[in-house]
Amino acid sequence: MSSEFGNTLRVSVFGESHGRAIGVTMQNLPAGEEIDLNALEALLDRRKPGKNALSTARHEPDRPVILSGLLEGKTTGSPLCAIIENRDARSRDYAELADKPRPGHADYTAYLKWAGQADMRGGGHFSGRLTAPLCIAGGIAKQILARKNIFVGAHLAAVAGIADEAFPLHPTQTQFDEIAGKDFPVIDDARGCDMQEAILAASHAGDSVGGVIECAAIGVPGGIGNPMFDGIENRLSAAIFGIPAVKGLEFGAGFAAAAMHGSENNDPYRMDDAGNITTTTNHAGGILGGISTGQPIVLRVAMKPTPSIAKPQQTVSLSRMENAELIVHGRHDPCVAHRAVPVVEAVTALVLLDFLLEQTNL
Amino acid sequence: MSSEFGNTLRVSVFGESHGRAIGVTMQNLPAGEEIDLNALEALLDRRKPGKNALSTARHEPDRPVILSGLLEGKTTGSPLCAIIENRDARSRDYAELADKPRPGHADYTAYLKWAGQADMRGGGHFSGRLTAPLCIAGGIAKQILARKNIFVGAHLAAVAGIADEAFPLHPTQTQFDEIAGKDFPVIDDARGCDMQEAILAASHAGDSVGGVIECAAIGVPGGIGNPMFDGIENRLSAAIFGIPAVKGLEFGAGFAAAAMHGSENNDPYRMDDAGNITTTTNHAGGILGGISTGQPIVLRVAMKPTPSIAKPQQTVSLSRMENAELIVHGRHDPCVAHRAVPVVEAVTALVLLDFLLEQTNL
Amino acid sequence: MSSEFGNTLRVSVFGESHGRAIGVTMQNLPAGEEIDLNALEALLDRRKPGKNALSTARHEPDRPVILSGLLEGKTTGSPLCAIIENRDARSRDYAELADKPRPGHADYTAYLKWAGQADMRGGGHFSGRLTAPLCIAGGIAKQILARKNIFVGAHLAAVAGIADEAFPLHPTQTQFDEIAGKDFPVIDDARGCDMQEAILAASHAGDSVGGVIECAAIGVPGGIGNPMFDGIENRLSAAIFGIPAVKGLEFGAGFAAAAMHGSENNDPYRMDDAGNITTTTNHAGGILGGISTGQPIVLRVAMKPTPSIAKPQQTVSLSRMENAELIVHGRHDPCVAHRAVPVVEAVTALVLLDFLLEQTNL
Amino acid sequence: MSSEFGNTLRVSVFGESHGRAIGVTMQNLPAGEEIDLNALEALLDRRKPGKNALSTARHEPDRPVILSGLLEGKTTGSPLCAIIENRDARSRDYAELADKPRPGHADYTAYLKWAGQADMRGGGHFSGRLTAPLCIAGGIAKQILARKNIFVGAHLAAVAGIADEAFPLHPTQTQFDEIAGKDFPVIDDARGCDMQEAILAASHAGDSVGGVIECAAIGVPGGIGNPMFDGIENRLSAAIFGIPAVKGLEFGAGFAAAAMHGSENNDPYRMDDAGNITTTTNHAGGILGGISTGQPIVLRVAMKPTPSIAKPQQTVSLSRMENAELIVHGRHDPCVAHRAVPVVEAVTALVLLDFLLEQTNL
Repeated sequence: MSSEFGNTLRVSVFGESHGRAIGVTMQNLPAGEEIDLNALEALLDRRKPGKNALSTARHEPDRPVILSGLLEGKTTGSPLCAIIENRDARSRDYAELADKPRPGHADYTAYLKWAGQADMRGGGHFSGRLTAPLCIAGGIAKQILARKNIFVGAHLAAVAGIADEAFPLHPTQTQFDEIAGKDFPVIDDARGCDMQEAILAASHAGDSVGGVIECAAIGVPGGIGNPMFDGIENRLSAAIFGIPAVKGLEFGAGFAAAAMHGSENNDPYRMDDAGNITTTTNHAGGILGGISTGQPIVLRVAMKPTPSIAKPQQTVSLSRMENAELIVHGRHDPCVAHRAVPVVEAVTALVLLDFLLEQTNL
Repeated sequence: MSSEFGNTLRVSVFGESHGRAIGVTMQNLPAGEEIDLNALEALLDRRKPGKNALSTARHEPDRPVILSGLLEGKTTGSPLCAIIENRDARSRDYAELADKPRPGHADYTAYLKWAGQADMRGGGHFSGRLTAPLCIAGGIAKQILARKNIFVGAHLAAVAGIADEAFPLHPTQTQFDEIAGKDFPVIDDARGCDMQEAILAASHAGDSVGGVIECAAIGVPGGIGNPMFDGIENRLSAAIFGIPAVKGLEFGAGFAAAAMHGSENNDPYRMDDAGNITTTTNHAGGILGGISTGQPIVLRVAMKPTPSIAKPQQTVSLSRMENAELIVHGRHDPCVAHRAVPVVEAVTALVLLDFLLEQTNL
Repeated sequence: MSSEFGNTLRVSVFGESHGRAIGVTMQNLPAGEEIDLNALEALLDRRKPGKNALSTARHEPDRPVILSGLLEGKTTGSPLCAIIENRDARSRDYAELADKPRPGHADYTAYLKWAGQADMRGGGHFSGRLTAPLCIAGGIAKQILARKNIFVGAHLAAVAGIADEAFPLHPTQTQFDEIAGKDFPVIDDARGCDMQEAILAASHAGDSVGGVIECAAIGVPGGIGNPMFDGIENRLSAAIFGIPAVKGLEFGAGFAAAAMHGSENNDPYRMDDAGNITTTTNHAGGILGGISTGQPIVLRVAMKPTPSIAKPQQTVSLSRMENAELIVHGRHDPCVAHRAVPVVEAVTALVLLDFLLEQTNL
Repeated sequence: MSSEFGNTLRVSVFGESHGRAIGVTMQNLPAGEEIDLNALEALLDRRKPGKNALSTARHEPDRPVILSGLLEGKTTGSPLCAIIENRDARSRDYAELADKPRPGHADYTAYLKWAGQADMRGGGHFSGRLTAPLCIAGGIAKQILARKNIFVGAHLAAVAGIADEAFPLHPTQTQFDEIAGKDFPVIDDARGCDMQEAILAASHAGDSVGGVIECAAIGVPGGIGNPMFDGIENRLSAAIFGIPAVKGLEFGAGFAAAAMHGSENNDPYRMDDAGNITTTTNHAGGILGGISTGQPIVLRVAMKPTPSIAKPQQTVSLSRMENAELIVHGRHDPCVAHRAVPVVEAVTALVLLDFLLEQTNL
């Protein structure tokens, strides 16, 4: 399956960082859905590098070209393929990297898997650049979900150990829009300033930092999902771990729940004022037994620090099979977590739309 | 896909807690593999309840009956189906639960999904009892992997906030065997005693506790896996989140990596004494870009506290659509994390064998 | 994938002819569907051997035991597993067959694939006996479809070159029931007598004959299916070729269409008296571009003659790698096509239900 | 799943006839395989229209642009995406067709499925033009298979009831090359002349004809495939029925086997001069129990006559829900079967490579 995910809504990503183009194919999109290309590009802009000192200066226009599946602004029901051409690819530095795998990168594992045949320039198919097509697909999914009153939002929950405040029990579409409109996607801007300082400090030290992203989906009806191996957590995790640099994932209280008592972690059911069943807490993150409760779906994603750093690092020479030192040249993001915020939203939206497309009317 | 996982090695679990039998089907097992049924039952015994005060007194003999796919002790290559008959199922208390969903359980979400048609007695298809067939399948996988010098082991890394020590950089088969032989599967028995006290204290208070399981696989060759959405993390996470009560998962340093600097988190490559490439740390948990590095694969699984507790809880009556109080009767495990240790091993072994079966000789 | 088919409705068959049990698991059945076990056994009886001189005397009671997924006669929504225990298995003759592969059987290919480790007694996992669990699954699907006014019927269209008449343009449920009630499932009983004579003649000559089955589904709404590789023909063919002995499949006019002119083969659209769009012919077999037209779905399945025959045959000895002669002992069906009629119905019903479960209400 | 097929080698086709581009993505290609682009275009040229009076004058340059997965002429192991831009698309005539579905086309079923939202200009995603990307993918597969001494060839076995001679028991690579080099892909050129006359006669009459394609694969080792639902016949049929206009498929003797006796249809095993096991006939088409025997794999594909014909036809007006007459304008192929010969080869090669990639070395 490699670079695909989804059961009914199949999303397939292709391309290498320094190849001719990267892109995405979406199968089984519903027909007749209007796609607002400006809104789509706005989402792509949120992950775009080069906006400020916090990210690489590489210029990525990231304008998607839709090759199929769209007619007069509406989906046709047949596969939608969108590509982004690669332009600003300088591969001159790659010779050294081909011999000296960068610690923390996929250089060495790709070398083992494909016996040195992979196109690993700029990270190749493993590059964070492949998250741009994911945002195209996810942006389309978000537009379709919004018409069903389902909204997905995310923020940078932590960087280098500095935490943003958490989403409230019931995040709103307004809050999602507000965060999406910020240059630095946090709830509490003061903590956001501290995070940015930590990123810059790491950058000046030739180093990098990781981060945590919190994502929520509101409006998902209860009863969506499946038990055991095909629930919301299963499909979401399989897709979320496809985002480069993700090393951890938790739903609701997650790892914190492991230290709680049952009486504390269980979410009590109550009738709300409108006569609907709700819960007074949401430690389950909106999912019980793989199936949605009707409460917000909440997940937290841990991203490791960017492996490409300016500091000298210990590695080996594959050709000589001996220890070596490596200095990675070029400009690299000292942190990718803030740019990954719309990517986590995109993947979450795609998985939720996948489930909704399976709601049968039989 | 529901209750299935795996790409080549398809594992499909069926059954309800109080139905006639539960079981598992494995497709695409290699032929001619000898299966030691005694070793298989030993693994099942590790998850068996009723061993001591820490777990429910429900008597589950859990003797697997293999219906197909095995001839004279060897796999035949065609689907292997194994079942466990249900005997000790007392469903008398279910009428109240059918109306009053237990907080933290799948009662309410199953009700929404199947409009009240599910067999939810004893947790139905969502019951932790379904992990017994998983252990049968995983035990078979472990035996096949062991012949390839691949070993999977796990321990209870934390309960109620009390932490065991972590696996060393290079866990050994001996260490795995030693832990598997213990009544309470921890590395440091002193901390294990503290954990057991915390479990008993929760039990006496009519409450429950959660826990964390650390699992490692040694001997996995480098170069196994796939990029993006079909890597080791993707497939493992999709399967691990199928174990009831799992709410979080991390690989290697995981969430801790999100607070590290790149210079700290990156695992330096070094030549070892035997002339092989190794890393001096293993924050990647043996996986980079979805592909194995050749170092131990390490994951940590967060399990929430058992939702069934003796304390009165707030819920609603589905028939009357009004608030209600619930007292869950019967005996329930005050902690399931220690019993889930072999389950996490089983699922991990199944996913790794799935990948190994895809290593082509083309 | 092996012994599974279906996308949403996953059907997985297990067991070997002389093993402990054979069975089937169905995933993603809708919940709350009442299953009439007597009707289910009536369908199984239609494929049962030993009814008359036309088929083997092997006694197969074929009483299904449902292990899971059914509560008080209704589906629960979780996987339904049903098994049939094997009783009348006499494996004494197998030693010779293990060395001398029977021409036309899977003995030799199974030997190549599994290096002699397969349980091939009685045909093993390749045995026609595995169609009994298929009939259990298909019988359940037929009951669910019938509630949607979709009916599937079949008849023996040809045996040994003797043809039954074809289904009319619009077959009816009454006609399906009538054929299903016959001992020998043809439309024209006179031709059925000729066919039975041909079968008996072959039997007396120590030989066997093949046949063709025509199957139709009525009431399938238009617009079901998908273009290209996931249409009705694609999924049906993938499943139908899983029935042992099937070597050909055509939809509508099929191979005859290849000799027609377009003006003859195209089905003209007309408004019917009720104001609905219909076609005046159905050469498309109810499928255009992989999607249903609303007309009856019609397919024809070619089954080769039973490979096990009493006549001496040329083969080789695998142990000595030299030419050998083989005489297959025991009783074998001189024709399996008439017993396969309900099997083709069963598989067709399963595939159609699979598609219907994917009709979304988004 | 829609427009994808393959288990390990995933082939995904996208595009509409009159959209911006059509294309194909291949996942899990082995790395380091050299691709000869000239040979690839030679295969594409074999299906190209406009070569002579037998096919449409529409100009399709069909030059593939490879966007990813290829570096310096070799596959990289990551997804290979190739596109063909659409240029010669004149959609002026589509307004009438959108209201009056063409008999024998997918116009009406697409209308039902997507409520009139599909881009059906020129046949849209159902167009025979989508077989061009299939040929790109299949051409790549053929080159990889050839290095394993596996060759796939095909010829036009019949047109309008005029039959070519059949492949011999052991077709050769030389024969495949010879047929591929012909303008009209038959074994017996005299019969080919008759066929061409029949096509021209139909064309002059404003009509069209269908045809049968015979395809063979030589060099496939024995023991490839799986029992029941994932054998060679299952996967091949699911893919072959994805080629537009295919309505029938048979393996080996196929429908003819249904009229044979077992003693005639069974292929006797014999030792050949080189000491290998062979069969003296090949009625099984190289497949028993879904698994290859080592003999040539042989299949025959029935294609219906082109539904677009110049003669007036009866249809309905969807807007007015009343009977209507339709005259299809523009130039259309009076036969597509001869152009589909390389397409059948392409799909067969892709499915066989898919199986070979699953041969494990565990």
